[in-house]
Amino acid sequence: MAFRRVRGTRDFLPDEQRKRIWIMDRIKEVYERYGFEPLESPALETFETLSNKQSQETLEEIYSFKDRGGRLIGLRFDLTVPLARIVGSNKSLPKPFKRYCISRAWRYERPQAGRYREFYQADADIVGVKGMEADAECLACAVDALRSLGFKDFEIRLNNRKILTGLALDAGIPEEKVPEVFRALDKLEKIGEENVIREMRSAGITNEQIDKIMGFAAMSGDNYNILEAVKECGNEISLEGVVELERLLELCGMYGIDKYIRVDLSLVRGLAYYTGPIFEVYVKGWESLGSCAGGGRYDELIGLFGDDNPVTGISLGVDRIYEIMEKEDMFPEEMVRKVYIAPVGDVEQESIEIAQKLRSSGINTELGLKDRSLSKQLSYCNSKDIRCVLIVGEKDLKDGKVTLRDLRSGEEKKINIDNIVKEIAMTGAQES
Amino acid sequence: MAFRRVRGTRDFLPDEQRKRIWIMDRIKEVYERYGFEPLESPALETFETLSNKQSQETLEEIYSFKDRGGRLIGLRFDLTVPLARIVGSNKSLPKPFKRYCISRAWRYERPQAGRYREFYQADADIVGVKGMEADAECLACAVDALRSLGFKDFEIRLNNRKILTGLALDAGIPEEKVPEVFRALDKLEKIGEENVIREMRSAGITNEQIDKIMGFAAMSGDNYNILEAVKECGNEISLEGVVELERLLELCGMYGIDKYIRVDLSLVRGLAYYTGPIFEVYVKGWESLGSCAGGGRYDELIGLFGDDNPVTGISLGVDRIYEIMEKEDMFPEEMVRKVYIAPVGDVEQESIEIAQKLRSSGINTELGLKDRSLSKQLSYCNSKDIRCVLIVGEKDLKDGKVTLRDLRSGEEKKINIDNIVKEIAMTGAQES
Repeated sequence: MAFRRVRGTRDFLPDEQRKRIWIMDRIKEVYERYGFEPLESPALETFETLSNKQSQETLEEIYSFKDRGGRLIGLRFDLTVPLARIVGSNKSLPKPFKRYCISRAWRYERPQAGRYREFYQADADIVGVKGMEADAECLACAVDALRSLGFKDFEIRLNNRKILTGLALDAGIPEEKVPEVFRALDKLEKIGEENVIREMRSAGITNEQIDKIMGFAAMSGDNYNILEAVKECGNEISLEGVVELERLLELCGMYGIDKYIRVDLSLVRGLAYYTGPIFEVYVKGWESLGSCAGGGRYDELIGLFGDDNPVTGISLGVDRIYEIMEKEDMFPEEMVRKVYIAPVGDVEQESIEIAQKLRSSGINTELGLKDRSLSKQLSYCNSKDIRCVLIVGEKDLKDGKVTLRDLRSGEEKKINIDNIVKEIAMTGAQES
Repeated sequence: MAFRRVRGTRDFLPDEQRKRIWIMDRIKEVYERYGFEPLESPALETFETLSNKQSQETLEEIYSFKDRGGRLIGLRFDLTVPLARIVGSNKSLPKPFKRYCISRAWRYERPQAGRYREFYQADADIVGVKGMEADAECLACAVDALRSLGFKDFEIRLNNRKILTGLALDAGIPEEKVPEVFRALDKLEKIGEENVIREMRSAGITNEQIDKIMGFAAMSGDNYNILEAVKECGNEISLEGVVELERLLELCGMYGIDKYIRVDLSLVRGLAYYTGPIFEVYVKGWESLGSCAGGGRYDELIGLFGDDNPVTGISLGVDRIYEIMEKEDMFPEEMVRKVYIAPVGDVEQESIEIAQKLRSSGINTELGLKDRSLSKQLSYCNSKDIRCVLIVGEKDLKDGKVTLRDLRSGEEKKINIDNIVKEIAMTGAQES
């Protein structure tokens, strides 16, 4: 039988989906702690919306098609463009407008390890604040979200599009070629320095210009020293970028998160719409997988859909976070918390009553629905990682009792039906 | 500017999305109480999967298109077909397999009041149980979910596809015309008896046959009496359906939910795949909107994708539930629970510290990020329905204090920074 999935898409079976929901719930919690509010938009957007001033690379990745009415529409490729459309068309939204969205997006990419055509992002953006206060809060929020998932050792690589632009122009690169330089530099991690230089050369950038750009890109050391170096030879645009990053670093100090930050002048980020600070977060030891979060300021995107509005935001990559957490075995030990009720014999009415009593007391309960022997029911529980089983038998019932068995320890005891909720609470089987 | 949404789709701004999330969280909670586990599948499916043995009506509603590789694919029109594909291709899943999925689906329908091309469903299904125990549990779970949302007065209309089929065959309607009879009957509520009869006639059904069918469809009164009447003149197939419903009613009695159930022999449900008990739930007073939940048994669908497996399930319509709850004003009074910190003057470092302290104590906190006057910040809070404001001013800070203002009562008091978490907990502003 050939009922396959669409290429580049995935099913999430319960063991995995439970963990994915756990990740998304933690992130949601932190986003709400920071005062972000939920916003959702359709999966489908018109092609006009999706393609509005996007780069050729982005256009090529849009999952677009004609609907039956002949209209060109597509699946959203991120959660940012829909935000821009919504803010652009709802002028009365009070500002700052702080929204989060944890949802999926689609890109028509060549499927490869860790890249899917359908993927999940967790975005939080602040609309309407020009100052670095918003960028700092986004970074603090990303750090808190990663920490709440259990990550301890990660690095925030920070740059500013203004610095990149300023340095490129200052090196004598013509304005129309700047995007090509960015595009080449963006591949540094992936294709290596030599190939980046080759790409720049074939774009008509001179060796001298390349040397200047690559010199800055390679700078390492103290964050403030790197920014000083830009100051010394930058122009007005890059200076503006330096002032922004210095202020951002100061604010990050106040949040106590400056220790995570490394200024990295080689950082570009793919999307065309960034205008100010940009950043990516890498988990130590998993850099080769790529960043697990990223974001930055894009003050001009909303203007393409309505009135100008400054925006800055973060995006956590749920898929990559899941991948690292799974490989690092970072999930809480017991994700499946439920009680299984095993009816044995003619105990239907009583089993249902016990199930409903547990459920109404907030205990997740699975009631045996198939007429199966106790041993078959227990092996089902083992296959499902269920630890706590209540055996309901005719004889016990006559004494007002049932048997509580812990499948891990093998221990069991008879408990009074009247105490059932309390006894199960004591096993901890119902906490989530 | 013409950046519109795609026809039949919606944006959910925070005030609405917060309520929609509240609905979905309550349903998820109840589904997990009943031991259902999360499963997610892609939005996109191949057309082979989506169209597998579907009726012409369903085919016409599939949002399908060719991808750039020329493959015919489409957006899922429900959450059931993907479940069938997954179970069909994962033979090792332990049975019963109880999964829930709260997510979206798409239908290329003519957009009209309450009908959208993108909509949200909350499904729970039990795979691998032939007996009515599973159907009863699904009904009990649907009742609990609706109750937990605050619904009190609703009706479960119950029928059985076997009864419908048996009665139709018994009336002498040829087997190949049975689906047409169902299709006409399915529209009873929408187009009225006269038009249903007209449709049946034009399908070549005789007046005598129509009278028989419509006679049963119109039966009302005691559930068991209706089933008795079917018994008296039914054939083997409808008898089987009666036995199922009698057993189901017995089990529903054990769950204490039989009072909600009304046997309704006119109930058909649109989709072709049902094979046994079917039901729809209507909120009293809102019947004209259509059902807010529905479901039934479809023992043959998974067999189309792999090995045969009996399945029964429920589907709650999130959009319709939201609509009724909004009109009936059923949501909890305070959905926005956060504290706003209003910095006044040179108090940046301290404001950030207070914000981070509150956040790490689990209090949702928005920190004023724009350099605005206190009165502008307060009117922002009013526009956002934020009740609890902490005013951080230079003078107060010298005494280790901040001002806590309740925007509803207008009351304010100075509180010690060390007691800030406790003081805010006392206002109840952070509970969610």
